[in-house]
Amino acid sequence: MYDLIVIGGGPAGITAAAIAINQRLETLIIAERWGGQMTYEMQLEDMAGQEVITGESLLDAFRRQLEYLEFARHFDRVTKVAPEESSFLVETADGDRFQARALIIATGAKPQRLNVPGEERLVGRGLSYSAVTHAGLFLGKDVAVVGNGRRAQWAAASLARKAHRVYLLAPEPLVATPLASKLRRMENVTLVEGVTVQEVLGSQYVEGLRVRMPDGGEQEIPVKGVFVKLARVPNSQLVRGWIDCDEQGHIIVDVYCATSWPGVFAAGDVTLVSEQVLVHIGEGAKAALSAYHYLLMQG
Amino acid sequence: MYDLIVIGGGPAGITAAAIAINQRLETLIIAERWGGQMTYEMQLEDMAGQEVITGESLLDAFRRQLEYLEFARHFDRVTKVAPEESSFLVETADGDRFQARALIIATGAKPQRLNVPGEERLVGRGLSYSAVTHAGLFLGKDVAVVGNGRRAQWAAASLARKAHRVYLLAPEPLVATPLASKLRRMENVTLVEGVTVQEVLGSQYVEGLRVRMPDGGEQEIPVKGVFVKLARVPNSQLVRGWIDCDEQGHIIVDVYCATSWPGVFAAGDVTLVSEQVLVHIGEGAKAALSAYHYLLMQG
Repeated sequence: MYDLIVIGGGPAGITAAAIAINQRLETLIIAERWGGQMTYEMQLEDMAGQEVITGESLLDAFRRQLEYLEFARHFDRVTKVAPEESSFLVETADGDRFQARALIIATGAKPQRLNVPGEERLVGRGLSYSAVTHAGLFLGKDVAVVGNGRRAQWAAASLARKAHRVYLLAPEPLVATPLASKLRRMENVTLVEGVTVQEVLGSQYVEGLRVRMPDGGEQEIPVKGVFVKLARVPNSQLVRGWIDCDEQGHIIVDVYCATSWPGVFAAGDVTLVSEQVLVHIGEGAKAALSAYHYLLMQG
Repeated sequence: MYDLIVIGGGPAGITAAAIAINQRLETLIIAERWGGQMTYEMQLEDMAGQEVITGESLLDAFRRQLEYLEFARHFDRVTKVAPEESSFLVETADGDRFQARALIIATGAKPQRLNVPGEERLVGRGLSYSAVTHAGLFLGKDVAVVGNGRRAQWAAASLARKAHRVYLLAPEPLVATPLASKLRRMENVTLVEGVTVQEVLGSQYVEGLRVRMPDGGEQEIPVKGVFVKLARVPNSQLVRGWIDCDEQGHIIVDVYCATSWPGVFAAGDVTLVSEQVLVHIGEGAKAALSAYHYLLMQG
């Protein structure tokens, strides 16, 4: 019986596990692999790799700590989580079963991919999945944002303050939000609804997008940056049904990262809190301390 | 007119300012000095300086960034913050006045000091203000916790899992909490209510406490560690009266670090969220992104 099992190997999960171990909790972190939200340097044609302070060195230190503590980690896919009398049962794809008195769910969200030619090759070379991290590098340039939901809209509005022109390429009509009507009026935002991206163009760096327009015609849009902000699906299947989630499936947490089920805490992209790595580190630390407090109370 | 003024130079404020600048917000951070919650290595007689991963290198990078951006910082004490039509006025002790469309309050809490001989000399040499950070270093030793409130009780319960014996020295009777009755029953916790600490003993490292017991007699308690957990007073005077605070004066925030006043966000020890540095870094980043979203919506 562990004190705490952390599910997920991204920034939130890694931080949570390291902090819990530091508090001398009997901790197990289960993940398919280290990783989670991708962090990468962005290289552009006219500038060297820009230093973006992402907390990566901090995560490295935590990861090294977990590498060293072999007994505290288990690489496998979690297939089932179930509450028991005064503990939780966790099962993995290989058939292993673990028990813990508290849980931290840090399973992230399914990556948002275009799945078109050019995408994989140009990640970090003009193509990004995080406007929060990389928008500042595109001052005065033309960029595209692909998506129609809340995150795509924020990315477009944020980029509109920095870039020369923003093409907001929405596969479906924009989701109705307070920001949507603002975006329709912004002078340097070109909104196209009902468009399909077919290819990311560029040999060394992003040079544009090939798209199918709403009228069925093909077009090339020249841009230096592409931000993919399609709908993200939070990986909350393991607890859906017994822990409160919002309509999109994000686990609902309070300011202490507590979920609706006593003893279960959540952090990172599986919640709605933020997609910024430093925030995930903070949320992971907070979830670990909240779990610790919970365990102290249990006895 | 700034986009954002951040008040406070601790981990939450520094991170908030750096993230906001990275998002190209016109940002000013006002602080009396860099610092805020103290972070320090703990040295003990029988071990070299222990590495505790605190996020210090991350904060260093942010601090260097702010040092470089001279126009983005102002060292002075803020004396007044007032909401105006669609902005906020900030005044300092030297009579400077600044305006911003959004605010982040990261003013921390007043440090909790014993103010007795030996205290200052032995900080980081057995004496600590953070059980979260340093409790793990006292495995199997005798330690004392000074305080009677919620934080003191958590520290004592946490140390009881690690230390050999915990003296919980409460100047006043324990505040009634779910944990208080548990602590009274714990075998390795010695609770004394109505005790006054008079001196921290030790030449190189903490060796004990000299206290006045409830019956008026003096006594020496031999311990290797002292955790000072007296009541903390959040520095929320600037906004008390127009922003919701709890009974102790902590600014109340939601999961996005928003306060009850639109455009004002708060992070760090001025809120109740946590006293751990990594959590403060995360909360600072989150407050900056929330302020940025708020500003995008304002136009």
